[in-house]
Amino acid sequence: MTEQHAFDMTCPLPLAQYPRVLMAHGGGGRLMQQLIEKMFRAAFGNTVQNHDAARLDIPQARLAMTTDSYVVRPLFFSGGDIGALAVNGTVNDLAMAGAKPLYLSNSFILEEGLEMETLWRVVQSMRAAADHAGVSIVTGDTKVVERGHGDGLFINTTGIGVIEHDFFIAPEQVKAGDTVLLNGDIGRHGMAVLSRRENLTFDSEIESDTMPLWETVQDLLAAGVRVHCLRDATRGGLAAVLNEIATSAKMQIDIDDTAIPVDAAVKSACEILGLDPHHVANEGRFVAFVAAEDKERARDIMNRHNPRRDAACIGTVLHGKSGLVTLKTAIGGQRILDMPSGELLPRIC
Amino acid sequence: MTEQHAFDMTCPLPLAQYPRVLMAHGGGGRLMQQLIEKMFRAAFGNTVQNHDAARLDIPQARLAMTTDSYVVRPLFFSGGDIGALAVNGTVNDLAMAGAKPLYLSNSFILEEGLEMETLWRVVQSMRAAADHAGVSIVTGDTKVVERGHGDGLFINTTGIGVIEHDFFIAPEQVKAGDTVLLNGDIGRHGMAVLSRRENLTFDSEIESDTMPLWETVQDLLAAGVRVHCLRDATRGGLAAVLNEIATSAKMQIDIDDTAIPVDAAVKSACEILGLDPHHVANEGRFVAFVAAEDKERARDIMNRHNPRRDAACIGTVLHGKSGLVTLKTAIGGQRILDMPSGELLPRIC
Repeated sequence: MTEQHAFDMTCPLPLAQYPRVLMAHGGGGRLMQQLIEKMFRAAFGNTVQNHDAARLDIPQARLAMTTDSYVVRPLFFSGGDIGALAVNGTVNDLAMAGAKPLYLSNSFILEEGLEMETLWRVVQSMRAAADHAGVSIVTGDTKVVERGHGDGLFINTTGIGVIEHDFFIAPEQVKAGDTVLLNGDIGRHGMAVLSRRENLTFDSEIESDTMPLWETVQDLLAAGVRVHCLRDATRGGLAAVLNEIATSAKMQIDIDDTAIPVDAAVKSACEILGLDPHHVANEGRFVAFVAAEDKERARDIMNRHNPRRDAACIGTVLHGKSGLVTLKTAIGGQRILDMPSGELLPRIC
Repeated sequence: MTEQHAFDMTCPLPLAQYPRVLMAHGGGGRLMQQLIEKMFRAAFGNTVQNHDAARLDIPQARLAMTTDSYVVRPLFFSGGDIGALAVNGTVNDLAMAGAKPLYLSNSFILEEGLEMETLWRVVQSMRAAADHAGVSIVTGDTKVVERGHGDGLFINTTGIGVIEHDFFIAPEQVKAGDTVLLNGDIGRHGMAVLSRRENLTFDSEIESDTMPLWETVQDLLAAGVRVHCLRDATRGGLAAVLNEIATSAKMQIDIDDTAIPVDAAVKSACEILGLDPHHVANEGRFVAFVAAEDKERARDIMNRHNPRRDAACIGTVLHGKSGLVTLKTAIGGQRILDMPSGELLPRIC
């Protein structure tokens, strides 16, 4: 979908003249001006301001700020691309802090020789994702590095959001008795990137789950669900975020593995490759720690924003052993769900 | 000075165990946690918050936001390094918007194999520069790319500042009759980087001018100097910023070349290399367009923050030809000062 959108519009840079990025596109002179005017401003519109810094009027004093650099390889994969990821990933970090995403900055590190067509597709995808998530890209920067000193294209987006409620959402707020909710199936993003990178084909194509999460969070808060902690399960997957929260909250978390939705294609791909889906990155999945009495309402709200409708209550918080995450398996046993310790799937975001 | 500071403290990561960056340092697991805890939090202190997004309380609704990625090569040069640059450059973009810098985000793209010692020196330098500029680094991110797909270390910093006055500082505010001020000599940053990169030695070492500019701007505003536009002369040098402002303001700018301070070492290095100092990047130099009656006061304030005390009134704005920048030369002629069009000095910031 993203790719189709990108090709709907024609890149306004004279591609015949400059089909590839030159060092001078980062030099502060005419060519950089042209790139900014004809490509970035054409895509991001008037929300990008002329000056090096954007002026923002924010009718609120409590803000959240987050930053992420995106180095995913390949740049395009089933269900998304680096541009959509760079918007959704940063929007989601704000959402996980309970903040409504408002503004993004956008900085490119381009490798000399990158095809302008590729850059244009990415920029178009960012614009579409920003529109979808309801954020404005207000300021930017472009650097060019010599061929062989980068990898096509890296993006940094930094986001500012506003906190419009009085919930304090943080690992320290997690309480014994809280229910752990998951807003849908895990492992698709990492496997979508990996299968494209390694040219693996499975029976059915695995699509990244990349999507913005603010609307789900907003609805949870608006419904009065007592949300204690939110965290998106990106690098390190579900296992990493559960372990981090158990450690910060000084609590034990018991997870029922049979309650965690995993797509059949992801499951078999993980089996073939010897990967644990709990360790695989997601880009549209998060865990919410909520008061047990609110769990059904929370799950229903999550499903409103999930076409698969497979949000689930996957576990419980208890005093137990601080920092421990246990997994009740399908055959009835219980094992420790540990932090991933090596680098299983590099460059998935 | 930066280097000395870095070596004053010992990197708390077990360097014997991990003397170089591994892919797993970006993987979301244990090693990444260790890097964040033992290196970044050790350096940046408690201002870095635990969660992916930082919560900020800002007692003001008018903000400025700016972003920059830093790809300077080499990482260390006379008078500075990529870390100091990444702080000062972003702080200065806020200052140029008339905003007091408050918060920075900080995102690293590390190349597998980077020496931890190098990273630690850069991190220490960032901390020192942030302290000096009075800003807090509040949130961060780390990605690792495979050997050969990056260049040691890239940094993105994004800054938020607060606008506490009612001046509107922008190119459109520039008026005919305005005086153009420059806060000191030009060309040192670009030549310091270039001479280190190309192993050039000159009679006297050229030191980068990197420094934070907010205090100078704050004093100009506090003194009631009618500041219409501010711009730091980074990539593309003085020539690029004057041309950009002349174009945005739809005015002509007449510059007196003999009034522009250029260090003798920079001048002779530029002559040897066939470079025009007007095109060479600076990291602590800016132009201010102010009401003519305020020019002496403005220059005196600039000199308070410049040990060389060589701030100067270098030109005047007139209706003339929109977008034109002229240069009165030492031999009494006049020539057009054009935008730099090629890529003379790549990777100087």
